[in-house]
Amino acid sequence: MDAYGELLDRLKNIDLIGQIGGLVSWDQEVLMPPKAATLRAEQLAWISKTGHELLTNPRIGELLGELEASEGLDEVQAANVRLARESYDKATKLPTEFVSQMAKHNSKALVSWTEARAKDDFSIFRNDLAKSIDLARQKADYLGFEELRYDALLDLYESGLTVSRVDPLFAGLRDSVAPLVKAVVESEMRPDMTWVESNAWSQPSQEGLSQSVSEAIGFDFEAGRRDASTHPFCGGSNPDDIRWTTRYNESDPFGSLYGSMHETGHGTYEQGRRRDLDFQPAGEANGLGVHESQSRLWENQVGRSREFCEWALPLWQQHFPENTEGVSADDLWRAVNLVEPSLIRVEADEATYNLHIMIRYEIEKKLISGDLEVDDLPDAWDDMYEEFLGVRAPNRTLGVLQDIHWSMGAFGYFPTYTLGNLYAAQLLAVAREDMPDHDENMRRGEFEPLLGWMRRRVHQRGSILKPAELIEEATGSPPSPDAFVEYLRDKVRRLYGVEP
Amino acid sequence: MDAYGELLDRLKNIDLIGQIGGLVSWDQEVLMPPKAATLRAEQLAWISKTGHELLTNPRIGELLGELEASEGLDEVQAANVRLARESYDKATKLPTEFVSQMAKHNSKALVSWTEARAKDDFSIFRNDLAKSIDLARQKADYLGFEELRYDALLDLYESGLTVSRVDPLFAGLRDSVAPLVKAVVESEMRPDMTWVESNAWSQPSQEGLSQSVSEAIGFDFEAGRRDASTHPFCGGSNPDDIRWTTRYNESDPFGSLYGSMHETGHGTYEQGRRRDLDFQPAGEANGLGVHESQSRLWENQVGRSREFCEWALPLWQQHFPENTEGVSADDLWRAVNLVEPSLIRVEADEATYNLHIMIRYEIEKKLISGDLEVDDLPDAWDDMYEEFLGVRAPNRTLGVLQDIHWSMGAFGYFPTYTLGNLYAAQLLAVAREDMPDHDENMRRGEFEPLLGWMRRRVHQRGSILKPAELIEEATGSPPSPDAFVEYLRDKVRRLYGVEP
Repeated sequence: MDAYGELLDRLKNIDLIGQIGGLVSWDQEVLMPPKAATLRAEQLAWISKTGHELLTNPRIGELLGELEASEGLDEVQAANVRLARESYDKATKLPTEFVSQMAKHNSKALVSWTEARAKDDFSIFRNDLAKSIDLARQKADYLGFEELRYDALLDLYESGLTVSRVDPLFAGLRDSVAPLVKAVVESEMRPDMTWVESNAWSQPSQEGLSQSVSEAIGFDFEAGRRDASTHPFCGGSNPDDIRWTTRYNESDPFGSLYGSMHETGHGTYEQGRRRDLDFQPAGEANGLGVHESQSRLWENQVGRSREFCEWALPLWQQHFPENTEGVSADDLWRAVNLVEPSLIRVEADEATYNLHIMIRYEIEKKLISGDLEVDDLPDAWDDMYEEFLGVRAPNRTLGVLQDIHWSMGAFGYFPTYTLGNLYAAQLLAVAREDMPDHDENMRRGEFEPLLGWMRRRVHQRGSILKPAELIEEATGSPPSPDAFVEYLRDKVRRLYGVEP
Repeated sequence: MDAYGELLDRLKNIDLIGQIGGLVSWDQEVLMPPKAATLRAEQLAWISKTGHELLTNPRIGELLGELEASEGLDEVQAANVRLARESYDKATKLPTEFVSQMAKHNSKALVSWTEARAKDDFSIFRNDLAKSIDLARQKADYLGFEELRYDALLDLYESGLTVSRVDPLFAGLRDSVAPLVKAVVESEMRPDMTWVESNAWSQPSQEGLSQSVSEAIGFDFEAGRRDASTHPFCGGSNPDDIRWTTRYNESDPFGSLYGSMHETGHGTYEQGRRRDLDFQPAGEANGLGVHESQSRLWENQVGRSREFCEWALPLWQQHFPENTEGVSADDLWRAVNLVEPSLIRVEADEATYNLHIMIRYEIEKKLISGDLEVDDLPDAWDDMYEEFLGVRAPNRTLGVLQDIHWSMGAFGYFPTYTLGNLYAAQLLAVAREDMPDHDENMRRGEFEPLLGWMRRRVHQRGSILKPAELIEEATGSPPSPDAFVEYLRDKVRRLYGVEP
């Protein structure tokens, strides 16, 4: 077998064990009996250890060396070699002892964060967080970076991402979105939410609505499933077995539907991968930012558009005939677009969401560089919320302790959420140029043209290009906040009549 | 690490991958989306191949050699070494090339059997069956045997089983049970089945009934699940995650309930294993015969007793108030004990079931030894059904083509079904001596004493002893058909008033 063939063969086994791990993890979240947790952890540890052993086999390093020195690799082959190199380096640059130390510390930190959050006492988490930051710095040093330590952490979640690329994006948001939000607040307008808040929304009807919408968008339920779980996610094994979840709250019908559209976006991305690249890294979905662009596209750009609400109203009426009596498409559109600064990121609306992320990004940069001390973090957090969102947390639980990410050592992850929003707006702006009937399509529930556009420009391109290159190829411009800012400005004008 | 510790460490990894395989297979049967089948097969093939590689690692052979030569192993240690040796030998004695040839042939034979059965044409399956028999003989030769080739195949499913052990069991059944069945048929008595056959039995109520009964028996739903599948089975991962299934037919309420009790028997066995022996073969459930004894115990010995029907009647009334109006415990008991010779094994009643198995056992012996040619098989089958059950199949589909086993190469498997019935009767006969209140307990739905007895005598003994030794230790006598024959004779006398 030639070197490339042997590399693909080894990558296939690594991918297969990843598929199995995906299924076992899905089961753990969705339907595992409670007493099974301990042995399930042993199974997942075995899967993780075995996958790591396959990936760090020195033979992979030899093959990569050989292939990197060779010429005439085509686009896909070059991508496979590049991506395998990235994984191999990330897996081999961190000493086994250090990985094990991190894993143990993260387990401990997760416990102290949970307790700190429950007791509203930052001091319980303080020392573990300080250690987590220290470990993240060490991790960055092992992985290597050119300018800033934080760059090495950003690169873990979106290949090629750096502070010098992210800073301009958030600057654009800060300068444009914060004033928008302020203008909305000052307008003192609030859509009529009584029809939402005064009714009970039965779970079976919510399930029916989610199912209909997901099917209409184009999720293939012969190659996937919808289930319920505490923390909604999209997982599974491979493009033929994609499983997404949502959660139901009988006093809020929007959470499950928009959560379902979000996960449907992730799911259709996975289902749309190039199948001749099964088991190859080049065929996999791109970085977290691009993945999030597909979920945000359907959740927000489509799902919160006026045209979508016109199409969806009859479905709402079918599943909730009594609750929606007298509700117009305009009422629905205004209700799903409520803009209201709040303390909690996961409950934030489309306009304020990225300000929550921007605050975390600025804080992470300073924590990793040492410009912000852990002891000063809680107040710095609250000050930034006050400055950019006009709200201040009454306690730590609603402030700095709200997110799980840092307790898991996931520094550098947050920015991908905002990248997703920016990419979604940028992609749709160009897609609209190619499809002049886009608004009319949405009004008719004809989602195939938009999904087909994404299939061609994004899904089928897999990870052949780096994320920023993919966005540039698909849209003709490098990543930028402009399309998102314009989209939001237009929307706020139509909803609230304000124009800052 | 000493040799024993290293062996256990390796066995733990083999067990873990088996646990993962159990979960992935369960998912495949119960809820996998249809398009996922192809890649699921790749995942399972990887699991099987990786497990086989771990098991056949020559280091295990070295460790076993060292440990077999050592002295002072305690009961559990000796069992682990013996059981690991059995697995290692079975895995290494068959050449890889031969295993692959068998796997390919079985896939082919499954297809031709399916087609032959659908078209009611034995000739479509004939050549593949002949090849399967030939491969089974070769397998026996690779594995080795003392007296008969068929012994090597029996041993695959129940360690230590041989024709010289099985023959006397079936002789006892043939001499006693066949005349019993004949006497029942000649009595021309049939219980009143109109209340069963004239009603519709809703699936949700059947589910509720199955759930209540399984909980009452003692299945722990915090460490397991109940689901629906086309072919009922008990699977899962480990004693903390045992998953059984049943199927529902709205015109027959007994199939789901007694299927549920059957799988609950398997499930409580797995949940009752010694937890200090996790990951060790000595702690695993014993051979297929002993496993089947636990399912048959609850399904038949308990579930079809008059006392159980007295306890269960109020549950039936609760879940099916209209259908059970005017039905007495006696009516219920007679209906669940209908004895009626039929053509299909899987639908057979408790009295005739073992005659179905006996016929297959006698045929398998002759096929393997060469005393019966494949071309003579279909008629030989029908002749034996006529002789022992008084019925003759009108076609091959209802005759020799009804079971999947031979198409999968599973010669030697059938006898374990009957062993289960015999062991169940033998165990309960002794348990009754220890628990004089047994009948009263059943009448009250107090199942804990019986489950506790099985826990101590059977479940907790794992695979420390060979199956026949375990039965002898638990009951004081080697395996025998006597208890079963006596149980059946007594029952038929009470139900039909006949006494041959």
